[in-house]
Amino acid sequence: MKLVSFSTHEGPSFGIVRDQTVIDLGKRLNGRFADLKALIAADAFDEARRLADSGASDYPLAEVTLLPVIPNPGQIFCVGLNYAEHVKETNRETTEHPVIFMRVPASQIGSGQPMLRPPESTQFDYEGEIAVIIGKGGRRIAEQSAWDHIAGYACYNDGSIRDWQRHTGQWGPGKNFYRTGAFGPWMVTSDEIEPNATLTLTTRLNGQEVQRATTDMLIHGIASQIAYLSTFTPLAPGDVIVTGTPGGVGAKRNPPLFMKAGDVVEVEVDRVGILSNPVADEL
Amino acid sequence: MKLVSFSTHEGPSFGIVRDQTVIDLGKRLNGRFADLKALIAADAFDEARRLADSGASDYPLAEVTLLPVIPNPGQIFCVGLNYAEHVKETNRETTEHPVIFMRVPASQIGSGQPMLRPPESTQFDYEGEIAVIIGKGGRRIAEQSAWDHIAGYACYNDGSIRDWQRHTGQWGPGKNFYRTGAFGPWMVTSDEIEPNATLTLTTRLNGQEVQRATTDMLIHGIASQIAYLSTFTPLAPGDVIVTGTPGGVGAKRNPPLFMKAGDVVEVEVDRVGILSNPVADEL
Repeated sequence: MKLVSFSTHEGPSFGIVRDQTVIDLGKRLNGRFADLKALIAADAFDEARRLADSGASDYPLAEVTLLPVIPNPGQIFCVGLNYAEHVKETNRETTEHPVIFMRVPASQIGSGQPMLRPPESTQFDYEGEIAVIIGKGGRRIAEQSAWDHIAGYACYNDGSIRDWQRHTGQWGPGKNFYRTGAFGPWMVTSDEIEPNATLTLTTRLNGQEVQRATTDMLIHGIASQIAYLSTFTPLAPGDVIVTGTPGGVGAKRNPPLFMKAGDVVEVEVDRVGILSNPVADEL
Repeated sequence: MKLVSFSTHEGPSFGIVRDQTVIDLGKRLNGRFADLKALIAADAFDEARRLADSGASDYPLAEVTLLPVIPNPGQIFCVGLNYAEHVKETNRETTEHPVIFMRVPASQIGSGQPMLRPPESTQFDYEGEIAVIIGKGGRRIAEQSAWDHIAGYACYNDGSIRDWQRHTGQWGPGKNFYRTGAFGPWMVTSDEIEPNATLTLTTRLNGQEVQRATTDMLIHGIASQIAYLSTFTPLAPGDVIVTGTPGGVGAKRNPPLFMKAGDVVEVEVDRVGILSNPVADEL
């Protein structure tokens, strides 16, 4: 099942994507769930699935505005330097523990919306990643049971303003410019993707492949990330873990390859979908 | 005016502290504002003040449980290495831009509640700081007008698990253990503290002073922090900026001085109040 957050002229809602149409769960479930995060927290996927199976349809997919899969996560954790090729290109070393930084919700947009290059920088870089959306919350989750805590998977573009990322040793400012990250187009629920599945991640800039990796290449795997993060903080339904980017980022190419207005950047995860965003200058 | 978030047997609410009593604004404003963040967003301080002036009183202060001043901030930004003595004791260098990291709401507690030392570490350190609570939101706020965006000031103990903070170059994990940070006891509204006031910050562990500084010693001042942060992200009502800790942290003493069960740690900001927390082992 593909779950999505979207808006129409009637405002924001969430639903199911099927056959290029959207079933409006916000409306059809009589407003019982405020948003997709609330549906996840209520563990109400079966109810949603019955509606999908009924053949209902409310909007053509092309006519809604996609929002970030979870527009309002309580926590967004990103894992840095988690593919060997990317560690190498940044001249850093592999760490025993995952490198964790955070994004704020305002830094995110949905598929199809423009990723904004701010006037403060020309160093706007892509980072294709796989996002994990937490279903069942928990603390000190063991690696073996981590898969039970995943609601689904999505594509993520951890768009980064490189010079601001390097202002100091802490990366937050370069990772949190308004509307520089993309999260979508939807989440595929975890019943469709078996634990520890090998997923292929590719990033394309203007149609040209710039990053490719498979999840078996992750240094700190998804279950290990969940175990680590939940050691220090309770993970809650709708929390997002952005699992790391492969080699090939623009800043480390020669010459550097940064994104600019008019570009189109895509992040594809097989069995999940394609996140596609134009790039625009923030006015 | 001192604004506070608290809970009683009737659940969470928010109010005004006056003469050792609490006026319950949640109740007296007929539930029009869900929480203190909503009151700030509605710019409804005048209404609150009229209730305070009416002499109303609902609970003795000692009988409510204090919550973090803002229990649910949209963003919590912390500034690191922002007093020269602390930069020196950590053998680091002053940076041109502020060092920014983030905390999550689950890492916070209110005054009087125990700060929890997790079983994963014995390196639980205090960091006394001044917290700024954003009133009027904004983006790319100029330094000169930054003071107009402050709703109030509080004390903050940016409790840190030092070994986890050093797991990698990114500090997040050591700064976000569940209930390791304290934020309170209340916020003093900014009409009572003039822009760029020199406030004195002191931290005491078991009655002994371990940190002392005045805000004129901040490397990146409060207005400058607001300008910097709002360059990359929109600041919103209820957002929190934790402005930096002075020299004297426990990890850099010889021998190191870490917090343990039974300790009491206080952060005092003159003209604001005293944040006091016992320390307990997380069970």
